[in-house]
Amino acid sequence: MKTNADERKTATMLDDLITPTLLLDRERLERNVRRLAARAEDLGVVLRPHMKTAKSVDVGRHVFPDGPGPITVSTIAEAEYFADHGYRDITYAVGMSPASALRAMEICRRTGVDLKLLLDTVEQADALADVREATGVTPSAFIELDCDDHRGGLKPDDPKLLEVADRIVAAGANLVGILAHAGESYSLSSPDALVKAAENERQAAVAAAETLRARGHACPIVSIGSTPTAHFAKSLEGITELRAGVYMFFDLVQHGVGVCTVDDIAITTLATVVGVKPEKGWVLIDAGWMALSRDRGTASQKVDQGYGLVCDEKGRVLEDVIVSQASQEHGILSMRCGSGKSMPDLPVGTRVRILPNHACAMAGQHDFYSVVDGERPRIEARWERIRGW
Amino acid sequence: MKTNADERKTATMLDDLITPTLLLDRERLERNVRRLAARAEDLGVVLRPHMKTAKSVDVGRHVFPDGPGPITVSTIAEAEYFADHGYRDITYAVGMSPASALRAMEICRRTGVDLKLLLDTVEQADALADVREATGVTPSAFIELDCDDHRGGLKPDDPKLLEVADRIVAAGANLVGILAHAGESYSLSSPDALVKAAENERQAAVAAAETLRARGHACPIVSIGSTPTAHFAKSLEGITELRAGVYMFFDLVQHGVGVCTVDDIAITTLATVVGVKPEKGWVLIDAGWMALSRDRGTASQKVDQGYGLVCDEKGRVLEDVIVSQASQEHGILSMRCGSGKSMPDLPVGTRVRILPNHACAMAGQHDFYSVVDGERPRIEARWERIRGW
Repeated sequence: MKTNADERKTATMLDDLITPTLLLDRERLERNVRRLAARAEDLGVVLRPHMKTAKSVDVGRHVFPDGPGPITVSTIAEAEYFADHGYRDITYAVGMSPASALRAMEICRRTGVDLKLLLDTVEQADALADVREATGVTPSAFIELDCDDHRGGLKPDDPKLLEVADRIVAAGANLVGILAHAGESYSLSSPDALVKAAENERQAAVAAAETLRARGHACPIVSIGSTPTAHFAKSLEGITELRAGVYMFFDLVQHGVGVCTVDDIAITTLATVVGVKPEKGWVLIDAGWMALSRDRGTASQKVDQGYGLVCDEKGRVLEDVIVSQASQEHGILSMRCGSGKSMPDLPVGTRVRILPNHACAMAGQHDFYSVVDGERPRIEARWERIRGW
Repeated sequence: MKTNADERKTATMLDDLITPTLLLDRERLERNVRRLAARAEDLGVVLRPHMKTAKSVDVGRHVFPDGPGPITVSTIAEAEYFADHGYRDITYAVGMSPASALRAMEICRRTGVDLKLLLDTVEQADALADVREATGVTPSAFIELDCDDHRGGLKPDDPKLLEVADRIVAAGANLVGILAHAGESYSLSSPDALVKAAENERQAAVAAAETLRARGHACPIVSIGSTPTAHFAKSLEGITELRAGVYMFFDLVQHGVGVCTVDDIAITTLATVVGVKPEKGWVLIDAGWMALSRDRGTASQKVDQGYGLVCDEKGRVLEDVIVSQASQEHGILSMRCGSGKSMPDLPVGTRVRILPNHACAMAGQHDFYSVVDGERPRIEARWERIRGW
């Protein structure tokens, strides 16, 4: 007899999907992908998409219609998955530990992939010698640059920059370049500030590359990127490649930053109404933080979207209806404070779609995408995604 | 050749684990389980643990050493998984939709499990007639009670209580009882307030059961529970069963509420140091919100634990070291504001364990538990957990 688990995999119509579940609008994905690909071409740089948002080779086929291109990943598990699906040029953009570097080089040895590491200390640089000896693979590594005090990396004028570069070479590894990420751009919201953040990221990376070249290091790759700065950079002179990930799907945080419209957002969680509390103006749905994620990234923006903005089953925004509270498997819909509107009639059994605050976080709560096209009721495909480390 | 994915499943020592990964301390689990089982016995009620935190039949074997007992679940996928592993008495404690009720009754038909539903509207009660006709299974249902304005449910004095009860019977279904959940108890922090919340939950449930009985409904089950009230109830007179879930693992939120000590917390995320920024007092680890979850439940408590409190590799707390910031795959460790201490020396490659703000949320980010016993370096077992809906 067919189990519920079987049923989950065979639905062909939106109405037959078990909720909560993740939807991906293919047309919006393709539009977002085309937009940044065109920008990269205009700016004369290679686009190296970050696959940490999508985590899916099926999405990858739409990002690279002509076959696997250069990508960025956030875990060794992603590196291995994409390497096993034909990707040959991968940057692992999280600071290496001796253990993760060993695992990365084992993947290189097994699959032949060119998997580049990231580091910013002499200790990590020195460790590359052991990694090389243990695996017989010559590691390639970027030096991580800190352009805005956001996370890891060295400042462009830090004397350790040259020391780390020299130690990478001394360890018998390849120094492939400089990698910067303008993470602070996510907290901005005006075009002027975004243009400035992008230019700051560019200048920092170019300055660091010039310092390395003056010392005799070739520094062939000068890599920058974040979804906001990738969309607002005016010039990328001196830069060779651009990284971005969330641009494929976009989300309410990116909308708050000013990078996309709500109609660009390609993923939603489909949910079902399971209760009503008219005396409180509440509608309860079967999607809580386990399906939506705990991300409250819009809480610090001008418009707080709660745990997500609510759309009807076809994806049309129900204005000012948000998921105001979430527990593990319950979400509470209510009107945004001060909206002056009243809750639309959403009886038990009604389907709604919830737009994500943060696409990487919402998608991370699901194992597959049900692919749809706009308001059409048909499920075009079921795309797997991976997780774990 | 062995892939990284294979390696992930075969580690027998803590040092060989790929990070970030979830650890479960078996001795702490067993101690927490014994504690609430003894309380339930003293109070003369059945304990019906909520499996939404553990989501694992391996954990279930430690909760029920003598074989499957009565459980609570939060998704139909959990219901199906536990039914397929021999559990025969399950309450699905999320408001039913017509679609989820149909799926639930299909599981009853296929496995013979007694799977009880939850509802609080006449529309849901009426839908049970169709569910019965479509599946040939007589549904059993609880009426959800609202004892503290937390989420769903009817107030004990709401006239709809009797109307819903009558409609369940009219639909040809079994009315099995009343179910209340004192969700607001999570926001308390004094023993007096917790005792009061537990007594309020008890009184509300007993009053509703008496109302139903006066109308001629037998109301055999009177079910209450939340981890805080389960541990603080003085009397459960008139109550037949107690539900709780997070008590198996506990977490920093429960510690803040006052239900457990830090040394009771049974799960942690094992992580590796991947960077240091001494000038900022930062240590970077390879566990971000993808591994720790985005849960910031302690932010509204007296002691804000950031994204989690940090322990050394053996699980000994590093006092006042917290995960102060998290991005997808990076965590930033720093000293708690005002601690007056300085960051211990944690060079790249050092292993640390992160205690969870919220055990349900952290565990939900992982596919398995590596089972350890206190400070011992051996992995005793690898227990799978399920996810999805």
